[in-house]
Amino acid sequence: MKPVPHVDALVFDVFGTVVDWRASVTKDVADVARGMKVQGDWQKFADEWRTGYHDGMRRVNAGEWPWMNVDLIHRRKLDELLPKYGLSGLDEPERDRLNRVWHRLKPWPDSVKGLSRLKKRYVISPLSNGNFALLTNMAKSAGLPWDCILSAELTGRYKPDPQAYQKSADLLGLARGRVLMVAAHVGDLRGAQAAGLRTAFVTRPLEYGHQGTPDTAGDPSFDVSAEDFIDLAKQMGV
Amino acid sequence: MKPVPHVDALVFDVFGTVVDWRASVTKDVADVARGMKVQGDWQKFADEWRTGYHDGMRRVNAGEWPWMNVDLIHRRKLDELLPKYGLSGLDEPERDRLNRVWHRLKPWPDSVKGLSRLKKRYVISPLSNGNFALLTNMAKSAGLPWDCILSAELTGRYKPDPQAYQKSADLLGLARGRVLMVAAHVGDLRGAQAAGLRTAFVTRPLEYGHQGTPDTAGDPSFDVSAEDFIDLAKQMGV
Repeated sequence: MKPVPHVDALVFDVFGTVVDWRASVTKDVADVARGMKVQGDWQKFADEWRTGYHDGMRRVNAGEWPWMNVDLIHRRKLDELLPKYGLSGLDEPERDRLNRVWHRLKPWPDSVKGLSRLKKRYVISPLSNGNFALLTNMAKSAGLPWDCILSAELTGRYKPDPQAYQKSADLLGLARGRVLMVAAHVGDLRGAQAAGLRTAFVTRPLEYGHQGTPDTAGDPSFDVSAEDFIDLAKQMGV
Repeated sequence: MKPVPHVDALVFDVFGTVVDWRASVTKDVADVARGMKVQGDWQKFADEWRTGYHDGMRRVNAGEWPWMNVDLIHRRKLDELLPKYGLSGLDEPERDRLNRVWHRLKPWPDSVKGLSRLKKRYVISPLSNGNFALLTNMAKSAGLPWDCILSAELTGRYKPDPQAYQKSADLLGLARGRVLMVAAHVGDLRGAQAAGLRTAFVTRPLEYGHQGTPDTAGDPSFDVSAEDFIDLAKQMGV
Protein backbone atom coordinates (compact mmCIF):
# COMPACT_ATOMS: atom_id res chain seq x y z
CA MET A 1 0.00 0.00 0.00
CA LYS A 2 1.23 3.50 -0.82
CA PRO A 3 2.10 5.87 2.01
CA VAL A 4 -0.59 8.50 2.63
CA PRO A 5 0.46 11.76 0.96
CA HIS A 6 1.41 14.67 3.25
CA VAL A 7 -1.14 17.32 2.36
CA ASP A 8 -2.72 20.34 4.06
CA ALA A 9 -5.97 20.54 2.11
CA LEU A 10 -8.46 18.17 0.51
CA VAL A 11 -10.53 19.56 -2.37
CA PHE A 12 -13.54 17.66 -3.60
CA ASP A 13 -15.37 17.15 -6.81
CA VAL A 14 -19.02 17.64 -5.86
CA PHE A 15 -21.58 16.37 -8.43
CA GLY A 16 -21.50 12.60 -8.02
CA THR A 17 -18.64 12.57 -5.52
CA VAL A 18 -20.23 14.43 -2.58
CA VAL A 19 -23.88 14.56 -3.67
CA ASP A 20 -26.23 12.22 -5.53
CA TRP A 21 -27.20 14.59 -8.36
CA ARG A 22 -29.21 12.00 -10.30
CA ALA A 23 -31.65 10.99 -7.56
CA SER A 24 -32.08 14.61 -6.39
CA VAL A 25 -32.76 16.01 -9.85
CA THR A 26 -35.03 13.12 -10.85
CA LYS A 27 -37.15 13.62 -7.75
CA ASP A 28 -37.54 17.39 -8.18
CA VAL A 29 -38.42 17.13 -11.88
CA ALA A 30 -40.90 14.32 -11.14
CA ASP A 31 -42.54 16.47 -8.45
CA VAL A 32 -42.91 19.39 -10.85
CA ALA A 33 -44.29 17.11 -13.60
CA ARG A 34 -46.76 15.50 -11.21
CA GLY A 35 -48.10 18.95 -10.35
CA MET A 36 -48.67 19.51 -14.07
CA LYS A 37 -50.12 16.01 -14.57
CA VAL A 38 -47.39 15.17 -17.09
CA GLN A 39 -45.83 11.70 -17.25
CA GLY A 40 -42.34 10.87 -18.44
CA ASP A 41 -38.99 9.24 -17.78
CA TRP A 42 -37.51 11.72 -15.32
CA GLN A 43 -34.29 9.79 -14.82
CA LYS A 44 -33.71 10.19 -18.53
CA PHE A 45 -34.52 13.90 -18.16
CA ALA A 46 -31.89 14.16 -15.40
CA ASP A 47 -29.33 12.30 -17.51
CA GLU A 48 -29.96 14.54 -20.52
CA TRP A 49 -29.72 17.66 -18.39
CA ARG A 50 -26.41 16.36 -17.06
CA THR A 51 -25.15 15.80 -20.61
CA GLY A 52 -25.94 19.44 -21.39
CA TYR A 53 -23.75 20.48 -18.47
CA HIS A 54 -20.76 18.53 -19.76
CA ASP A 55 -21.32 19.77 -23.28
CA GLY A 56 -21.63 23.42 -22.15
CA MET A 57 -18.39 23.33 -20.17
CA ARG A 58 -16.56 21.71 -23.05
CA ARG A 59 -17.75 24.51 -25.35
CA VAL A 60 -16.68 27.19 -22.88
CA ASN A 61 -13.22 25.67 -22.44
CA ALA A 62 -12.91 25.31 -26.24
CA GLY A 63 -13.78 28.98 -26.74
CA GLU A 64 -16.96 28.18 -28.70
CA TRP A 65 -19.04 29.85 -26.01
CA PRO A 66 -18.04 32.86 -23.90
CA TRP A 67 -17.56 32.25 -20.19
CA MET A 68 -20.85 31.38 -18.57
CA ASN A 69 -21.41 29.88 -15.15
CA VAL A 70 -23.10 26.56 -14.51
CA ASP A 71 -26.43 28.11 -13.51
CA LEU A 72 -26.57 29.58 -17.01
CA ILE A 73 -25.41 26.37 -18.69
CA HIS A 74 -28.06 24.44 -16.76
CA ARG A 75 -30.73 26.97 -17.66
CA ARG A 76 -29.96 26.85 -21.40
CA LYS A 77 -30.29 23.09 -21.38
CA LEU A 78 -33.41 23.19 -19.21
CA ASP A 79 -35.17 25.54 -21.65
CA GLU A 80 -34.29 23.08 -24.42
CA LEU A 81 -35.56 20.01 -22.52
CA LEU A 82 -38.86 21.35 -21.17
CA PRO A 83 -40.82 21.33 -24.48
CA LYS A 84 -39.37 17.92 -25.36
CA TYR A 85 -40.85 16.48 -22.15
CA GLY A 86 -44.20 18.30 -22.30
CA LEU A 87 -43.27 20.83 -19.62
CA SER A 88 -43.18 24.03 -21.67
CA GLY A 89 -46.02 25.40 -19.53
CA LEU A 90 -43.57 26.24 -16.72
CA ASP A 91 -43.37 30.00 -16.19
CA GLU A 92 -40.24 32.01 -15.45
CA PRO A 93 -40.24 31.77 -11.62
CA GLU A 94 -40.96 28.01 -11.86
CA ARG A 95 -38.12 27.51 -14.34
CA ASP A 96 -35.77 29.47 -12.12
CA ARG A 97 -36.80 27.40 -9.12
CA LEU A 98 -36.36 24.11 -10.99
CA ASN A 99 -32.99 25.22 -12.34
CA ARG A 100 -31.88 25.71 -8.76
CA VAL A 101 -32.46 22.05 -7.93
CA TRP A 102 -28.70 21.83 -8.50
CA HIS A 103 -28.29 24.11 -5.44
CA ARG A 104 -30.30 21.62 -3.33
CA LEU A 105 -28.69 18.27 -4.19
CA LYS A 106 -28.61 15.69 -1.40
CA PRO A 107 -25.32 14.26 -0.11
CA TRP A 108 -24.43 10.57 -0.16
CA PRO A 109 -25.09 9.02 3.28
CA ASP A 110 -21.40 9.07 4.32
CA SER A 111 -20.51 12.53 2.97
CA VAL A 112 -21.22 14.82 5.94
CA LYS A 113 -19.77 12.40 8.49
CA GLY A 114 -16.62 11.81 6.48
CA LEU A 115 -16.10 15.51 5.75
CA SER A 116 -16.59 16.42 9.42
CA ARG A 117 -13.84 13.98 10.39
CA LEU A 118 -11.47 15.20 7.67
CA LYS A 119 -12.11 18.84 8.66
CA LYS A 120 -10.49 18.22 12.05
CA ARG A 121 -7.06 17.90 10.48
CA TYR A 122 -7.30 19.33 6.97
CA VAL A 123 -8.70 22.35 5.16
CA ILE A 124 -11.62 20.94 3.18
CA SER A 125 -13.25 22.64 0.21
CA PRO A 126 -15.26 21.79 -2.86
CA LEU A 127 -13.36 22.24 -6.12
CA SER A 128 -16.26 21.97 -8.49
CA ASN A 129 -17.25 23.31 -11.86
CA GLY A 130 -20.50 24.36 -10.17
CA ASN A 131 -20.71 28.10 -9.63
CA PHE A 132 -19.86 29.80 -6.35
CA ALA A 133 -23.47 30.58 -5.36
CA LEU A 134 -24.61 27.06 -6.25
CA LEU A 135 -21.92 25.51 -4.04
CA THR A 136 -22.55 27.98 -1.19
CA ASN A 137 -26.30 27.35 -1.22
CA MET A 138 -25.80 23.59 -1.49
CA ALA A 139 -23.46 23.57 1.50
CA LYS A 140 -26.05 25.42 3.55
CA SER A 141 -28.96 23.20 2.54
CA ALA A 142 -27.04 19.91 2.80
CA GLY A 143 -24.96 20.78 5.89
CA LEU A 144 -21.61 20.30 4.13
CA PRO A 145 -19.01 21.62 6.58
CA TRP A 146 -16.60 23.22 4.09
CA ASP A 147 -13.89 25.62 5.28
CA CYS A 148 -14.28 27.67 2.09
CA ILE A 149 -15.81 27.40 -1.37
CA LEU A 150 -13.60 26.90 -4.43
CA SER A 151 -15.22 26.88 -7.85
CA ALA A 152 -14.06 26.91 -11.45
CA GLU A 153 -15.94 30.22 -11.54
CA LEU A 154 -13.06 31.70 -9.51
CA THR A 155 -10.45 30.39 -11.93
CA GLY A 156 -12.11 31.22 -15.26
CA ARG A 157 -11.56 27.69 -16.63
CA TYR A 158 -13.49 24.50 -16.10
CA LYS A 159 -11.90 21.29 -14.88
CA PRO A 160 -10.05 19.37 -16.24
CA ASP A 161 -8.18 22.49 -17.45
CA PRO A 162 -4.98 22.70 -15.33
CA GLN A 163 -5.72 26.31 -14.36
CA ALA A 164 -8.83 25.26 -12.43
CA TYR A 165 -6.67 23.13 -10.13
CA GLN A 166 -3.61 25.36 -10.02
CA LYS A 167 -5.39 28.63 -9.25
CA SER A 168 -7.34 26.86 -6.52
CA ALA A 169 -4.12 25.70 -4.84
CA ASP A 170 -2.76 29.25 -5.22
CA LEU A 171 -5.85 30.70 -3.51
CA LEU A 172 -5.31 28.28 -0.63
CA GLY A 173 -1.74 29.56 -0.39
CA LEU A 174 -0.44 26.01 -0.83
CA ALA A 175 2.06 24.29 -3.09
CA ARG A 176 0.16 22.08 -5.52
CA GLY A 177 1.62 18.90 -4.04
CA ARG A 178 0.11 19.80 -0.65
CA VAL A 179 -3.44 19.62 -2.06
CA LEU A 180 -5.31 16.34 -2.52
CA MET A 181 -8.07 16.27 -5.13
CA VAL A 182 -10.87 13.82 -4.25
CA ALA A 183 -13.21 12.57 -6.98
CA ALA A 184 -15.20 9.59 -8.19
CA HIS A 185 -14.18 10.38 -11.77
CA VAL A 186 -10.92 9.27 -13.35
CA GLY A 187 -10.84 12.17 -15.83
CA ASP A 188 -11.01 14.77 -13.07
CA LEU A 189 -8.18 13.13 -11.17
CA ARG A 190 -6.01 12.83 -14.29
CA GLY A 191 -6.51 16.59 -14.74
CA ALA A 192 -5.52 17.20 -11.12
CA GLN A 193 -2.43 14.98 -11.53
CA ALA A 194 -1.38 16.86 -14.65
CA ALA A 195 -1.68 20.10 -12.66
CA GLY A 196 0.58 18.80 -9.89
CA LEU A 197 -2.01 17.93 -7.25
CA ARG A 198 -2.20 14.68 -5.29
CA THR A 199 -5.22 12.47 -6.00
CA ALA A 200 -7.75 10.32 -4.13
CA PHE A 201 -10.27 8.15 -5.96
CA VAL A 202 -13.55 7.36 -4.19
CA THR A 203 -16.05 4.91 -5.64
CA ARG A 204 -19.67 6.02 -6.07
CA PRO A 205 -21.23 2.90 -7.59
CA LEU A 206 -24.75 4.36 -7.73
CA GLU A 207 -23.97 7.71 -9.35
CA TYR A 208 -25.70 6.68 -12.58
CA GLY A 209 -28.34 4.46 -10.94
CA HIS A 210 -28.49 0.70 -10.65
CA GLN A 211 -28.07 0.21 -14.41
CA GLY A 212 -25.21 2.70 -14.67
CA THR A 213 -21.58 1.99 -15.44
CA PRO A 214 -19.56 4.33 -13.21
CA ASP A 215 -15.78 4.37 -12.90
CA THR A 216 -15.04 2.00 -10.04
CA ALA A 217 -11.60 0.71 -10.91
CA GLY A 218 -9.70 3.96 -10.47
CA ASP A 219 -6.08 3.96 -11.52
CA PRO A 220 -2.98 2.63 -9.75
CA SER A 221 -1.28 6.01 -10.26
CA PHE A 222 -3.70 7.73 -7.86
CA ASP A 223 -2.29 8.35 -4.37
CA VAL A 224 -5.32 7.05 -2.47
CA SER A 225 -8.24 4.81 -3.39
CA ALA A 226 -11.20 4.67 -1.00
CA GLU A 227 -14.64 3.08 -0.85
CA ASP A 228 -16.35 6.16 0.58
CA PHE A 229 -15.59 9.24 2.71
CA ILE A 230 -15.41 7.25 5.96
CA ASP A 231 -12.78 5.00 4.43
CA LEU A 232 -11.01 8.09 3.06
CA ALA A 233 -10.96 9.70 6.54
CA LYS A 234 -9.56 6.51 8.03
CA GLN A 235 -6.83 6.30 5.40
CA MET A 236 -6.00 10.00 5.95
CA GLY A 237 -5.49 9.29 9.66
CA VAL A 238 -8.57 10.98 11.14
CA MET B 1 -36.24 53.35 13.71
CA LYS B 2 -35.68 52.21 10.12
CA PRO B 3 -37.23 48.95 8.98
CA VAL B 4 -34.73 46.07 8.79
CA PRO B 5 -33.61 45.63 5.19
CA HIS B 6 -34.75 42.47 3.39
CA VAL B 7 -31.50 40.76 2.54
CA ASP B 8 -30.32 37.21 1.84
CA ALA B 9 -26.65 37.55 2.77
CA LEU B 10 -24.56 39.42 5.31
CA VAL B 11 -20.94 40.08 4.36
CA PHE B 12 -18.48 41.24 6.98
CA ASP B 13 -15.42 43.37 7.17
CA VAL B 14 -12.98 41.28 9.22
CA PHE B 15 -9.95 43.17 10.61
CA GLY B 16 -11.37 45.20 13.49
CA THR B 17 -15.01 44.22 12.86
CA VAL B 18 -14.85 40.45 13.50
CA VAL B 19 -11.38 40.08 15.04
CA ASP B 20 -9.22 42.15 17.37
CA TRP B 21 -6.19 42.52 15.11
CA ARG B 22 -4.34 44.92 17.41
CA ALA B 23 -4.28 42.77 20.56
CA SER B 24 -3.52 39.59 18.58
CA VAL B 25 -0.63 41.10 16.62
CA THR B 26 0.81 42.92 19.65
CA LYS B 27 0.86 39.68 21.66
CA ASP B 28 2.55 37.61 18.95
CA VAL B 29 5.20 40.24 18.22
CA ALA B 30 5.86 40.67 21.96
CA ASP B 31 6.26 36.88 22.31
CA VAL B 32 8.77 36.78 19.46
CA ALA B 33 10.68 39.78 20.87
CA ARG B 34 10.80 38.25 24.36
CA GLY B 35 12.35 35.12 22.87
CA MET B 36 15.06 37.35 21.37
CA LYS B 37 15.42 39.42 24.57
CA VAL B 38 14.46 42.60 22.71
CA GLN B 39 12.31 45.28 24.32
CA GLY B 40 10.03 47.71 22.52
CA ASP B 41 6.59 49.21 22.10
CA TRP B 42 4.82 46.33 20.39
CA GLN B 43 1.46 48.09 20.20
CA LYS B 44 3.21 50.76 18.18
CA PHE B 45 4.74 48.00 16.03
CA ALA B 46 1.24 46.58 15.40
CA ASP B 47 -0.11 50.03 14.53
CA GLU B 48 2.74 50.72 12.11
CA TRP B 49 2.29 47.31 10.48
CA ARG B 50 -1.39 48.09 10.07
CA THR B 51 -0.54 51.44 8.44
CA GLY B 52 1.60 49.57 5.92
CA TYR B 53 -1.42 47.43 5.02
CA HIS B 54 -3.60 50.46 4.28
CA ASP B 55 -0.80 52.13 2.36
CA GLY B 56 -0.11 49.00 0.28
CA MET B 57 -3.75 48.56 -0.74
CA ARG B 58 -4.04 52.21 -1.65
CA ARG B 59 -0.98 51.86 -3.91
CA VAL B 60 -2.39 48.73 -5.56
CA ASN B 61 -5.77 50.37 -6.22
CA ALA B 62 -3.99 53.48 -7.55
CA GLY B 63 -1.94 51.37 -9.96
CA GLU B 64 1.38 52.35 -8.32
CA TRP B 65 1.97 48.72 -7.37
CA PRO B 66 0.94 45.64 -9.34
CA TRP B 67 -1.72 43.44 -7.77
CA MET B 68 -0.35 41.77 -4.68
CA ASN B 69 -2.26 39.99 -1.96
CA VAL B 70 -2.32 41.03 1.68
CA ASP B 71 0.16 38.35 2.77
CA LEU B 72 2.67 40.01 0.45
CA ILE B 73 1.74 43.54 1.52
CA HIS B 74 2.13 42.49 5.17
CA ARG B 75 5.46 40.83 4.45
CA ARG B 76 6.93 43.90 2.71
CA LYS B 77 6.04 46.05 5.69
CA LEU B 78 7.28 43.46 8.18
CA ASP B 79 10.69 43.31 6.51
CA GLU B 80 10.84 47.11 6.78
CA LEU B 81 9.81 47.18 10.46
CA LEU B 82 12.02 44.40 11.84
CA PRO B 83 15.38 46.27 11.69
CA LYS B 84 13.76 49.41 13.07
CA TYR B 85 12.66 47.47 16.16
CA GLY B 86 15.87 45.49 16.65
CA LEU B 87 14.40 42.25 15.29
CA SER B 88 16.44 41.84 12.11
CA GLY B 89 17.84 38.59 13.51
CA LEU B 90 14.64 36.73 12.57
CA ASP B 91 15.33 34.14 9.90
CA GLU B 92 13.09 33.32 6.93
CA PRO B 93 10.88 30.64 8.57
CA GLU B 94 10.43 32.88 11.64
CA ARG B 95 9.48 35.86 9.47
CA ASP B 96 7.01 33.74 7.56
CA ARG B 97 5.50 32.47 10.79
CA LEU B 98 5.21 35.97 12.27
CA ASN B 99 3.70 37.30 9.03
CA ARG B 100 0.99 34.69 9.40
CA VAL B 101 -0.12 36.11 12.73
CA TRP B 102 -2.78 37.79 10.58
CA HIS B 103 -4.13 34.28 9.82
CA ARG B 104 -4.50 33.64 13.57
CA LEU B 105 -6.26 36.78 14.83
CA LYS B 106 -8.67 36.30 17.74
CA PRO B 107 -12.35 37.22 17.42
CA TRP B 108 -14.12 39.77 19.62
CA PRO B 109 -16.00 37.96 22.44
CA ASP B 110 -19.42 38.26 20.72
CA SER B 111 -18.32 37.43 17.15
CA VAL B 112 -18.75 33.65 17.00
CA LYS B 113 -22.01 33.66 18.93
CA GLY B 114 -23.52 36.44 16.82
CA LEU B 115 -22.39 34.89 13.53
CA SER B 116 -23.79 31.48 14.55
CA ARG B 117 -27.19 33.06 15.16
CA LEU B 118 -27.13 35.04 11.90
CA LYS B 119 -26.10 31.91 9.96
CA LYS B 120 -29.44 30.28 10.77
CA ARG B 121 -31.31 32.65 8.48
CA TYR B 122 -28.72 34.29 6.24
CA VAL B 123 -25.71 33.39 4.13
CA ILE B 124 -22.77 34.82 6.05
CA SER B 125 -19.35 35.51 4.60
CA PRO B 126 -16.34 37.67 5.19
CA LEU B 127 -15.83 40.37 2.57
CA SER B 128 -12.35 41.41 3.49
CA ASN B 129 -9.30 42.78 1.79
CA GLY B 130 -7.42 39.93 3.47
CA ASN B 131 -6.44 37.21 1.03
CA PHE B 132 -8.42 34.01 0.56
CA ALA B 133 -5.96 31.73 2.38
CA LEU B 134 -5.63 34.18 5.26
CA LEU B 135 -9.41 34.29 5.74
CA THR B 136 -9.78 30.51 5.36
CA ASN B 137 -7.05 29.80 7.91
CA MET B 138 -8.42 32.43 10.29
CA ALA B 139 -11.90 30.93 10.13
CA LYS B 140 -10.49 27.53 11.00
CA SER B 141 -8.34 28.74 13.89
CA ALA B 142 -10.96 31.12 15.33
CA GLY B 143 -14.03 28.94 14.67
CA LEU B 144 -15.78 31.53 12.51
CA PRO B 145 -18.78 29.70 10.99
CA TRP B 146 -18.76 31.29 7.51
CA ASP B 147 -20.79 29.78 4.67
CA CYS B 148 -18.09 30.76 2.18
CA ILE B 149 -15.06 33.02 1.92
CA LEU B 150 -15.20 36.24 -0.11
CA SER B 151 -12.04 38.26 -0.47
CA ALA B 152 -10.92 41.25 -2.50
CA GLU B 153 -8.42 38.76 -3.91
CA LEU B 154 -11.32 37.22 -5.86
CA THR B 155 -12.38 40.59 -7.27
CA GLY B 156 -8.98 42.04 -8.22
CA ARG B 157 -9.69 45.35 -6.45
CA TYR B 158 -9.45 46.32 -2.80
CA LYS B 159 -12.33 47.83 -0.87
CA PRO B 160 -13.59 50.56 -1.02
CA ASP B 161 -13.41 50.13 -4.82
CA PRO B 162 -17.01 49.38 -5.98
CA GLN B 163 -15.90 46.24 -7.84
CA ALA B 164 -14.88 44.54 -4.60
CA TYR B 165 -18.49 44.78 -3.38
CA GLN B 166 -20.25 44.25 -6.70
CA LYS B 167 -18.32 41.17 -7.81
CA SER B 168 -18.87 39.66 -4.37
CA ALA B 169 -22.65 40.09 -4.69
CA ASP B 170 -22.41 38.62 -8.20
CA LEU B 171 -20.55 35.56 -6.89
CA LEU B 172 -23.30 35.07 -4.31
CA GLY B 173 -25.80 35.20 -7.19
CA LEU B 174 -27.64 38.05 -5.46
CA ALA B 175 -28.82 41.50 -6.45
CA ARG B 176 -26.66 44.05 -4.69
CA GLY B 177 -29.56 45.32 -2.62
CA ARG B 178 -30.02 41.84 -1.13
CA VAL B 179 -26.55 41.94 0.45
CA LEU B 180 -25.83 43.70 3.74
CA MET B 181 -22.26 44.85 4.37
CA VAL B 182 -21.33 44.84 8.06
CA ALA B 183 -18.37 46.91 9.26
CA ALA B 184 -17.06 49.00 12.12
CA HIS B 185 -15.61 51.48 9.62
CA VAL B 186 -17.55 54.28 8.00
CA GLY B 187 -15.35 54.37 4.89
CA ASP B 188 -15.98 50.72 4.13
CA LEU B 189 -19.75 51.17 4.45
CA ARG B 190 -19.74 54.29 2.27
CA GLY B 191 -17.99 52.18 -0.39
CA ALA B 192 -20.61 49.45 -0.03
CA GLN B 193 -23.42 52.02 -0.28
CA ALA B 194 -21.92 53.50 -3.43
CA ALA B 195 -21.83 49.98 -4.90
CA GLY B 196 -25.51 49.40 -4.17
CA LEU B 197 -25.26 47.20 -1.06
CA ARG B 198 -27.18 47.69 2.17
CA THR B 199 -25.12 48.65 5.23
CA ALA B 200 -24.85 47.81 8.92
CA PHE B 201 -22.56 49.72 11.25
CA VAL B 202 -21.23 47.92 14.34
CA THR B 203 -19.23 49.74 17.00
CA ARG B 204 -15.88 48.28 18.05
CA PRO B 205 -14.76 50.83 20.65
CA LEU B 206 -11.52 49.01 21.51
CA GLU B 207 -10.19 48.39 18.00
CA TYR B 208 -7.34 50.89 18.50
CA GLY B 209 -6.91 50.23 22.23
CA HIS B 210 -8.10 52.27 25.20
CA GLN B 211 -6.46 55.45 23.90
CA GLY B 212 -7.76 54.97 20.37
CA THR B 213 -10.33 57.07 18.54
CA PRO B 214 -12.43 54.61 16.55
CA ASP B 215 -15.51 55.46 14.48
CA THR B 216 -18.40 55.03 16.90
CA ALA B 217 -20.97 57.50 15.59
CA GLY B 218 -21.72 55.74 12.31
CA ASP B 219 -23.92 57.62 9.89
CA PRO B 220 -27.69 58.04 9.79
CA SER B 221 -27.70 56.87 6.16
CA PHE B 222 -26.67 53.33 7.15
CA ASP B 223 -29.53 50.83 7.24
CA VAL B 224 -28.65 49.30 10.61
CA SER B 225 -26.55 50.45 13.54
CA ALA B 226 -25.65 47.89 16.22
CA GLU B 227 -23.56 47.74 19.37
CA ASP B 228 -22.11 44.31 18.62
CA PHE B 229 -22.96 41.09 16.73
CA ILE B 230 -25.51 39.95 19.32
CA ASP B 231 -27.37 43.23 18.91
CA LEU B 232 -27.04 42.89 15.13
CA ALA B 233 -28.53 39.36 15.24
CA LYS B 234 -31.40 40.62 17.36
CA GLN B 235 -32.11 43.48 14.99
CA MET B 236 -31.96 41.09 12.01
CA GLY B 237 -34.63 38.94 13.66
CA VAL B 238 -32.57 35.91 14.71
